[in-house]
Parts: sequence; structure tokens; C-alpha cells
Amino acid sequence: MNGAGNLMDFLDEPFPDVGTYEDFHTIDWLREKSRDTDRHRKITSKSKESIWELIKSLLDAWSGWVVMLLIGLLSGTLAGVIDLAVDWMTDLKEGVCLSAFWYSHEQCCWTSNETTFDDRDKCPQWQKWAELMTGHAEGAGAYVLNYFLYILWALLFSFLAVSLVRVFAPYACGSGIPEIKTILSGFIIRGYLGKWTLLIKTVTLVLAVSSGLSLGKEGPLVHVACCCGNLFCSLFSKYSKNEGKRREVLSAAAAAGVSVAFGAPIGGVLFSLEEVSYYFPLKTLWRSFFAALVAAFTLRSINPFGNSRLVLFYVEYHTPWYMAELVPFILLGVFGGLWGTLFIRANIAWCRRRKTTQLGKYPVLEVIAVTGITAVLAYPNPYTRRSTSELISELFNDCGALESSQLCDYINNPNMSRPVDDIPDRPAGPGVYNALWQLALALVFKIVITIFTFGMKIPSGLFIPSMMAYHHHDWIIFKNWCRPGADCVTPGLYAMVGAAACLGGVTRMTVSLVVIMFELTGGLEYIVPLMAAAVTSKWVADAFGKEGIYESHIQLNGYPYLDVRDEFTHRTLATDVMRPRRSEPPLAVLTQDTTTVEDVETLIKDTDYNGFPVVVSRESERLIGFVQRRDLTLAIKNARQKQDGVVSSSVVYFTEDAPQLPASNPQPLKLRRILNLSPFTVTDHTPMETVVDIFRKLGLRQCLVTRSGRLLGIITKKDVLRHMAQMMNQDPESIMFN
Amino acid sequence: MNGAGNLMDFLDEPFPDVGTYEDFHTIDWLREKSRDTDRHRKITSKSKESIWELIKSLLDAWSGWVVMLLIGLLSGTLAGVIDLAVDWMTDLKEGVCLSAFWYSHEQCCWTSNETTFDDRDKCPQWQKWAELMTGHAEGAGAYVLNYFLYILWALLFSFLAVSLVRVFAPYACGSGIPEIKTILSGFIIRGYLGKWTLLIKTVTLVLAVSSGLSLGKEGPLVHVACCCGNLFCSLFSKYSKNEGKRREVLSAAAAAGVSVAFGAPIGGVLFSLEEVSYYFPLKTLWRSFFAALVAAFTLRSINPFGNSRLVLFYVEYHTPWYMAELVPFILLGVFGGLWGTLFIRANIAWCRRRKTTQLGKYPVLEVIAVTGITAVLAYPNPYTRRSTSELISELFNDCGALESSQLCDYINNPNMSRPVDDIPDRPAGPGVYNALWQLALALVFKIVITIFTFGMKIPSGLFIPSMMAYHHHDWIIFKNWCRPGADCVTPGLYAMVGAAACLGGVTRMTVSLVVIMFELTGGLEYIVPLMAAAVTSKWVADAFGKEGIYESHIQLNGYPYLDVRDEFTHRTLATDVMRPRRSEPPLAVLTQDTTTVEDVETLIKDTDYNGFPVVVSRESERLIGFVQRRDLTLAIKNARQKQDGVVSSSVVYFTEDAPQLPASNPQPLKLRRILNLSPFTVTDHTPMETVVDIFRKLGLRQCLVTRSGRLLGIITKKDVLRHMAQMMNQDPESIMFN
Repeated sequence: MNGAGNLMDFLDEPFPDVGTYEDFHTIDWLREKSRDTDRHRKITSKSKESIWELIKSLLDAWSGWVVMLLIGLLSGTLAGVIDLAVDWMTDLKEGVCLSAFWYSHEQCCWTSNETTFDDRDKCPQWQKWAELMTGHAEGAGAYVLNYFLYILWALLFSFLAVSLVRVFAPYACGSGIPEIKTILSGFIIRGYLGKWTLLIKTVTLVLAVSSGLSLGKEGPLVHVACCCGNLFCSLFSKYSKNEGKRREVLSAAAAAGVSVAFGAPIGGVLFSLEEVSYYFPLKTLWRSFFAALVAAFTLRSINPFGNSRLVLFYVEYHTPWYMAELVPFILLGVFGGLWGTLFIRANIAWCRRRKTTQLGKYPVLEVIAVTGITAVLAYPNPYTRRSTSELISELFNDCGALESSQLCDYINNPNMSRPVDDIPDRPAGPGVYNALWQLALALVFKIVITIFTFGMKIPSGLFIPSMMAYHHHDWIIFKNWCRPGADCVTPGLYAMVGAAACLGGVTRMTVSLVVIMFELTGGLEYIVPLMAAAVTSKWVADAFGKEGIYESHIQLNGYPYLDVRDEFTHRTLATDVMRPRRSEPPLAVLTQDTTTVEDVETLIKDTDYNGFPVVVSRESERLIGFVQRRDLTLAIKNARQKQDGVVSSSVVYFTEDAPQLPASNPQPLKLRRILNLSPFTVTDHTPMETVVDIFRKLGLRQCLVTRSGRLLGIITKKDVLRHMAQMMNQDPESIMFN
Repeated sequence: MNGAGNLMDFLDEPFPDVGTYEDFHTIDWLREKSRDTDRHRKITSKSKESIWELIKSLLDAWSGWVVMLLIGLLSGTLAGVIDLAVDWMTDLKEGVCLSAFWYSHEQCCWTSNETTFDDRDKCPQWQKWAELMTGHAEGAGAYVLNYFLYILWALLFSFLAVSLVRVFAPYACGSGIPEIKTILSGFIIRGYLGKWTLLIKTVTLVLAVSSGLSLGKEGPLVHVACCCGNLFCSLFSKYSKNEGKRREVLSAAAAAGVSVAFGAPIGGVLFSLEEVSYYFPLKTLWRSFFAALVAAFTLRSINPFGNSRLVLFYVEYHTPWYMAELVPFILLGVFGGLWGTLFIRANIAWCRRRKTTQLGKYPVLEVIAVTGITAVLAYPNPYTRRSTSELISELFNDCGALESSQLCDYINNPNMSRPVDDIPDRPAGPGVYNALWQLALALVFKIVITIFTFGMKIPSGLFIPSMMAYHHHDWIIFKNWCRPGADCVTPGLYAMVGAAACLGGVTRMTVSLVVIMFELTGGLEYIVPLMAAAVTSKWVADAFGKEGIYESHIQLNGYPYLDVRDEFTHRTLATDVMRPRRSEPPLAVLTQDTTTVEDVETLIKDTDYNGFPVVVSRESERLIGFVQRRDLTLAIKNARQKQDGVVSSSVVYFTEDAPQLPASNPQPLKLRRILNLSPFTVTDHTPMETVVDIFRKLGLRQCLVTRSGRLLGIITKKDVLRHMAQMMNQDPESIMFN
């Protein structure tokens, strides 16, 4: 007879709550898996009974794919809506479309027939606020009025965003990726992926991005997709009732989120695998792949970028790169790594200050202040005034002959013998130098403001700002390097590699980053430069500290996250970590046939342990099983209500058969059915590294410690985490050389 | 005190063999990991002693990356050399370059100045054999002579290949991927990745591919790369002395192999993750990424394809695809899935026949016969005469205006108003219909011959033949569908999607397949069609049987491979699987302080178990630890030689302190140091699915079964595999709906 199976039979109907976990507790992966197998077995055996049951079992088998389809459809749609709304609201800060106020600047001028290709940015339908209100499009007055309204709109948007978050869904703030990583590792945070969070996060994300704050929509989109995943889980009991299965769906949803954030389905799957997920079996890989595909496809159908490509920043150039260029690429990697370290340290220091000082008490004021500063500083510089994605798109692009961008203002030399489209050979015009200055300023500004922005109480992503911030610094270098008449380097490529390096430094991704970058830009030829930069950046950044920005935030918030990447190499044994310690009172255990109901109730009242080991007798200390506190409480409550004769002095039996007692004795209470007969045990001599490995790979919640068959103590996941943190602090440099 | 640590101290020096495993045995991943951590700890603690030790520890930390660099360099170089050699030898079957015999046809004519672009295939320096020998280039006599020499060369190459394999390196045959999967899962096959195998496999791969057999070089290249990996492991004791660490390197080497086989570094990493590897931590992901990068880069520097692209079959077209085309893409997926199932069944049936009948005794004859048939049938058809990769390259390509291929022989209508390069609108010329017939014949021929070829005793890969075999069947359909004047579908895209679908059906890859396909062709726009086809193909094929071609071959060969994909959902318990069974004699155990040396020696002689549990006493059956047979044998041998007073009647002590015995008693033998004090235990009530999970995730070799602290039995990896096979056969349909 199977303990876990019986647990199910017993617990399935009477109390709806049994088998679930309390908030801010850790799940037991093995138990979840075993429960799912039981459910599956039941369905399979029933399916032979009738056609209807067979159909039900087939539906059950396909429900995973159905959920993926739904997640893909919804997150693709939401991403499309968000993109359109952000476009419109960003432009609303500057002006309005007269023919149809719901058009963004670009849409407004595209639909107008009166414009030629040359001045597609200027069409009569689109009017800046000053022009609309005063009738003057130019002049100092108009500039000041536009400036003022720009700031006003930004403040309005960010105020709305932060208020909505504070009032309706406090969990909707931040990027969400650290929390999702923690949830996927088996932690329960109720409501974090709820319907309200989904709704509020979607709305506030649009507001926050439109307000011009230095943040991206990528992390929040992952959060939104995971909320979708959670929503659809509730449609199928297979997923809603099993925290382990639910996390498989969430892993796939995270992939769909990245897929729509960048239009990079494969990058999304890899991101989920490399960065977010904890337990990622091949089955989840395939499903993530499918969800990411559907999501990307839905987004493409909505077509928010106005071209039929999936790709956000499609680059047109296909010029080959040269071996010698590897040196600057690797230097970019070094720079990215250094920047990543710096950014993480500064951001964490700022967030810690926010947590510990008065600052944290005024989140609304903080957001308003940062938005105000951002808007005031951003407006004068054309590169920061626009949305970040527009800017990146311009930076990544190579100058074409028809390009109107200031960055492409090279002097056309009519005497030149080479073809016109070979632009880099021409000397740079004043516009280029001008643009370079503005870009340098934009770079410094973005770097500083992003440190303060990431972590505020509004939805905020990191990707786009990180990508934005660093690419052109070597532009000046290459300008001198590039000899006239020679085949010249491609500035856009440097922007791309620089962005990859800096993102790599901040997040420590490698493979997924490169895949995202080339799905983002279509630059398949540039895998080697991207890889070189990403790997270098990771090396450099790892030398200064193992943790990426997400892990740092997890640590800052103190989530119980057992990182798969940390290697535990200390020479401690299970006996050093287990409780009770030598000075502590002995372990709280139940005996299999001598404990009374009253004893159990006292134990439950006096302690706050999540469960109790059951032994043959206190003398022999031979372990039989483990019983969950929650199950015990519910079972006793149930028995007292429904089972006649169960009183405080009733003996609780965990044995297979309760002995025949004289009639005078109170009715015994048989609880073998809630006993887990296969608790996980290790010996006291087991090295802690093995214990850590077991906790990590099997996703345990607790583990019992024995010596020669005697129960000695217990190790919980929190004990493991505490011990790891202790050892890390004792000897911080030992982890550097893994 | 740590058992595993002591084991190391004790065993490090005296016997070189200790800590290794016997051939065809399974490794214990936990033990390997623990040994590596010990080594690491030692180096770290030493590194504080002197600068020299610090440098050594830094070198040790970087040795992983150094190994990756070396693997990348060598496998990239080997792949380049193989490509060049295959090119030359394939052309050698038809003719020779007069100006320099070591030039292939293409190189010969490229270096010649006398040719124009139009007839670059015909240059005077390149002469077919008949022309060279008789002076006549045309006519029936020349055709027959060329035909004859073509067959002769093919037979010569394949005879050389099979003889070399048989005489020098029997392990060099086949694709190698099933064996590498098994090795990576923890099995020991000595010599499979040895130096001889590397050398012979490289040479015979060239011979086999050049002989025109229907096989590809992709699987074997993975094998070659793994051999490189194994070779470089021997340079560093960190890897050569630890089977677990070695496997991490081999996983990365497999990625490098695929990277150079297709010029697809990211696809390679994913292939290793999805298809080949068993234990793939994030660290290995990063290292694989690096190795794949270096390998691809090296190959690009050698530049065997004569263009500076990494990409093997670069496609030039970037025409968008239409929603409606998803239907044929999905149909292609269905077709691919069906074909995959069929191919696997037919090939496995043929291989089983080879194993069980007389056929298997004449491998040389078999190869000669298949080569002969292939050559005889292949020569008349121009599509099969050429090398398969040339053919695929032509099929994937869209017709350009200058294309000389017969497939592009559309009738040029001078009255047409549309531009010349819009080729699909023109009616097809006779050449196209001719080509379609030849292609259809080639398709049938390739399908049939590949079934017989895969599994022969020469290096053989599957990829290219699979890709080749199926793409144009829907060509005819689309021809009718395509209305003149409308934007038409791209035939090359269908070839690409069809190839992906069929490969997906055969190997059941999804993500890695799509990534490889678009790295192979540069067609980033076609992710969605490729994904749709790959996922459909996997679904269809999975409906007929869970196993891909590699798993089928693993099963056919009976390797102890615990597939991560199979889910075990039966309701058996550990007690049903453990040995001894009820009818069997009791478990062979040692006691901690009453067994004599003689008893131990008898036990070792009488049984063939790999290890023995040690208990407190036979009565209490309380488990203390587990001792490996190999260690026990070596320790007793050592003690008898070196330790005075140890005789047959000496008592073996596994306790911490041996009691003070009277002088008359023989000297006791203390063996606590070889005792593993943290053996893995589960209770007899543990469901087998949990046990399977534990074996899989922790890579155990054996696991002890207890009930309330008493030792009951043992479960080994072989027991688990046997039980899984049993349950699978009992109830085959239960695995279908996972």
C-alpha cells in the first residue's frame, strides 16, 4: 500500500485546502510529483471504463498544450496592445493627431496622404501642444510650453501608475523577475500572479513606459505572461491543484513573455531555461517552445511595429566583420562586465538605502520626483526625449543613402569616385559631431537615472535601458581608426555588441542573450562577435561577484532561493546543520502507538514546525514516517467532528492495524493514511554538499537525519539556506574560482 | 570526519586504479562530485600557502576553459580538413584536376582563368576519367567507362573504410550518438573515445562519405569532437581522474561537434542539451557555448566552403510567407512525423535482423554490397550522383535570374511585363519537369537505401540523408496552386521546412532542430514555419512511439540508459523491486565488528555484487555504511602485503575505534576509511517513481532499502532499468498520454 496514494484518496474530497501550502512557504516537489502521478494513474485506469472517460483522459493529456495555446494567444495580444498604447501615449506627451486622436505620431502621418517620404515626420494632422494651443509652432514660448506639458504628462502618467499599484495591486511593482525566479524555485507568494496583478500591471506598465522613465517593458512582460499562465492554470485541475505542475506552466509562460517582449521566440525559451526556471524538464522545453511560438505569432498578427517582421530592431546591414575587430568586441565585453558590476552594486546600495531609511516610506513621492527629474533632463536632448526603443532602433541601424537622421549627416563629396551608398568613407558632417555629444550626454544621464529607477514601486524592466546605455562610446575611437577608402567598420554592429556586453554584465546571461540579440536584429552573421562579447562580459563581471542583478535582488529581499549556480564546497556534514543542536531540547517526534490526541494537540500548539517525524518508540528511535502539521491538524479536527468516541485521551495509531482494545478504552484514532511512509533521510555523516545537491535536485522541503537507523534530527530548506549564507560569509573568496 | 574525504586521502596515492570504474559499469555521480569537491577544497586551502600554489589553483580554475579552447580548435580544424578531403575525393570518383591533382572540381575551375562565369563547371584543367584515358569526353564508351570507374572508386573507398574500422578501431563505426548518449548518462565504455577511434573515425568518415553512400558526417563529427574532448581531458587530472567532470567536458565537446557539422554554434549547444546530454548544469551550458564558438570560428578561418560565411546552405531569399501557407507547413510536419516513424521502424527491424541472423557476420561484404548498389543506382541520376550536400544546397536555393540549374529552367517569356527576376510567374520549362522526375526517383532511392545504410559498420551519420530525402514532394502541389501574376510561394522554403519536419520525425528534436535549421540557412524570418513543422512532426511521431532513432538504437543495443524523457507512472514500490526477493537468499552484508578477513574474502569470491552494506549486527540490521567491492579487494590486498599481523582470522573493524584486544588475538584490520558513511537509503514504501526520479537526478549507482531503520535490501540501476522495461511491456499504452 502506498502512503502517498492513500493520502490522496483520503484528502481529495473532505477539505478543499488539504494538499495546498500556506503563503510564504516552500513546496515539496517530490510530493507534488507523486500526487500528479496518482491523479494520472487514476485517469488512465478510469479511461478503460467508458468512452466518455477515455475522452476525458485524452482531454487531460492535451490540456497542457491547450494552456500553452491560451497563454500564447493572451500574452501575444496583451503585448500588442501594450505596444500600441505605449506608442500613442509617448507621443501624447508631445502632441496630438487632429484627424484621429487615438493615432500615434507615426500612424497619424502614415495615414495622411499629403506627406512625401522626405518629411514623413512633419504632417499637418500632427500638432504639437503649443501649436494647437497658441497657434505658434516655433519660438521660445512654444518650446517652453511644450517642455512644460511634456513634464506635466509624464508626471500625470507616473502618478497614475504608482497610485494604481499602491491601491489595487502592490505586487505589480518592479520587474517581477526576481520574484518569479523565487516562485519557480518552489516558493508560494499568493496573489503575486493573480488576476488583479495582471490587470494593474498591464495598465501601469503602459503608464510607466509612456511617462518616459528609464525603464523597459521586458521584465514586466514576463510577469504579465506568468500571470496569464497562472490564470489559465485555474481552468484545469491538473494545474490548479498541483503546485509543481503549475510551475511547469509558469516556466513556459516566462518564455512566452520574453518571446513577445523582443519578438524572439527561441531566445525566450532559452531565457526561461538559463535565467528564470528552476525545474526545466525537456517536456517543458517543448511546451515553452510552443507557447513562445504562438505568442510571437499572435504579436506578429497584431503587427504593432507596422512591418510584417517579428523583429523589433531589424538591421539591414550584412557586411562581414574582420578578425581584427574581435579586439574591440572583447574590449566592449570587458567594459560591459565592468559596467554590469558597477550597476548592480550601485542599484543594490540604493535599494538597500530605500529599504532601511525613511525614503522607503514615500514611494509615490519618490516616483514623482524621479519622473520629474527624468522629464526635465530628458526633454532638451532629442535622444532622450524620444522613447528608448526608437533610439535603439536608430543606433543599431547603419546609415543608408536616404537616411534623414542626424547621425548620418556625413558630408557628400561630389568628387568622390566611390559609389554613393558607401557612406562611411565620407568625412563626418557637423551633425555627426553634434549627435555624438548629445549621445554621450544621453549615455551618462541614462546610466545614472536607471540606477535610481530600477526597483521603484512601479512596473519597471531593465532590458531596454541597459541596451540603450552603452554602445557609442567607442564610436569616436573607430572614427579615427577608419581610413578613408578602406572598407570600414559598421557602427550599428558596435552598438549591438555593446548592448549585448552590457546586458550580459548586468544579467549574466550568455546563450539566451546572444540568441535574443540576433533574433532581435536579424544579424545572424554576427554570432561570433556577440558571443565573444557576451562571454567576456560574463567573465569580467563574475570576477567581481557571482550574482547577476536578479539574484542580487532576491538576496536583498531575503527570498528562500536555492541558486542552482552556487556551488557549495565546504566541508561540513549534515550533523553540523541539523536541528536540534546540542544545546536545544530534543526533536519533537510522535510515536507510532503511544501518543494520545491530547499529546498531539499540545505539540501542535507548542511548536511551529511544519511536520513531525513518527518513530516506533522513543527508546529505539527507529523512523517510520513523517506527518505534515497541516494534515495532522485537519485530520484531528475532522475526526473530532465526525468520528464518534474520539476524545482527548484517544490513542493515535500510525501502525497498519490498531490493536483490539478493551471497550472501556476510548476509541483509537488511526492516522496511517496521512503518514508519509517514504520520508527522505540522509545519514549524519553525509557531506553538506551532497545534502545541498539533494535539496536542489529533488526540490525537498525537509530531510531527516539518521545514524545507524536511529533518528537524530531534521534539516529544512531554511536550515540549508542559512548554513550556506553563513559559510559564504566566513570565506567569501573561496567561491571565486569555481 | 567525512567518509568520502577520507576515502580520497587513503586511496589517492597507493593504487592508481582506485576510484576508477570497471569497463561496462555505471558511475556514481554523487561520489564523483564529492571527490571533485574534495580535490577543489584541497587546492583552495593549499593556495593560501604560497604564490606558486595560488597560481596552480588559478590554472586549475581556468583549466575548464582551456580544455574548451583546445576542443574547439581541434574539432574545428578536423572538420575543416574532413570537408576539404571529402570535396576532393567525391570529385575524384568522376575525374581529376590536371593542373594540381589535389584540387577538387570547383577549386580546379576557380583557379583557372580561362573560364567565364557561365561555364564555370567546365574548364579544360578538369578532366573526367574517360576523357583522360581515351581522349573522348562524349559518347557511350566514355559514359560506360566513367560509370565503371565511379563504381570502382566508390567500392575502393568503402572497402578501405570498413577494413580500417575492423582492423584498428571497431568502435569507430556507426553514428556514435547512441553510444555517446549512453556514456554521458554515466556508463563506461573504455576506448570508445580513445585516440585510435579518433584517428580512424576521421579517416574512415572521409572515405565513407566520399564513397557516395547515403550517409552524413554530422553524427560522426560529434563522435570525433567527443574523442577530442576525451583526449584533452587526459591533460588535466581534474578531468582525467573524475568521470563526472569528464562527462561535463564531453557534453560541451558534443556541442562543438554539431557546431562544426552545421556551422551552427547555438544549435550545437541546444542539440547537446536537448538530445545528447544527461547532466547539463548551467556551467556546462556556458562552456559548451564557448567551445562551440571557438570551433565554429576555427572552421570559418579554414573556410572550406570558399565563402566567408559560417553557414553551410545560405539561402538568399527573404520573401515573407503567408498565413495560408501554414497549412502546407503543418502537412509537411505530419508527413515528416509519419516518415520518421516509418524510418525508425524499418531501420530498427533491419538492424535487428543484422544482429540476429547470419548477415551480421559479414560486415565487410555488406558494406561492399550496399556501396555497389548505391553507386550503380546513383550514377545515372544527376541528383544522386553528386554529393548530398551539393544537392541540398541547390534544393534550398531559390532560382535566380542567372541560375544555370535545371530546376530553374523556366521559360522566359519576353512579352512579360513583370521584372525578370520574378521567376516563379513564368511557366515551367521542360527542364523543370525533367528535374522533378529525377528528384522523385532520387527521393525514393535515398529513402530506401538510407534504411539499409544507417547502422552498418562504418562511420555513418543520418542528418544530411534525412534532410535530403524529403522536400520536393509537395513541389508538384504548389506548382498548380501558384497562380500566374500572384506573389508565389518559395520552393526553397518548402524544401527547408520539409527537411526540418523529417529530421524532427526521426530524431524528435524541436528547439535545437529549428535553431540548427535557421543557423544553417540564415533564414531567420522562417522561425514560425520551421517551428510549426517541427512541433507537428514531433506530435505525430510521438503518437506512434516515444522513441527517436537514437533511443531506439540504444534499446536495440541494450545499453543501460535511463532516459530522462520516459515517465514512470506505475504504482509499484521500492519493496517490489529491491533484491533479495522473497525466494532468494538474504542480502550479503558485512557486520561492523564481527566479520573476519576470511569471511570478507569468501564473500567477494562467492558473489559478484559491486558492493556490500555494513550493518551494526545481523540481528539489529541497523545500517552503518556501504563499502565498494573494488575498494575492499584492494584494501585487503594492501593490508596483507604491508600490514604485519593481518591474517585470515583478523577481524575487520568498520567502527571508529577498534577495541583493545588481547595480544593473542590476531591484529585487527581497520577499514572505516573505505566505508561510505552516507549511503543513499529509501524506505520500502517509497513509490518506484520517486526512486526512478532519484536515480535519474542524482545519478546513483545503487540505493539501499530500509524499513523503520532496518536494512531490507538493495536496488541497483540495473534493477531499476529491468523493472521499467518490465512495466513498459505489461502496459504499453499507458505511456502514450504523458
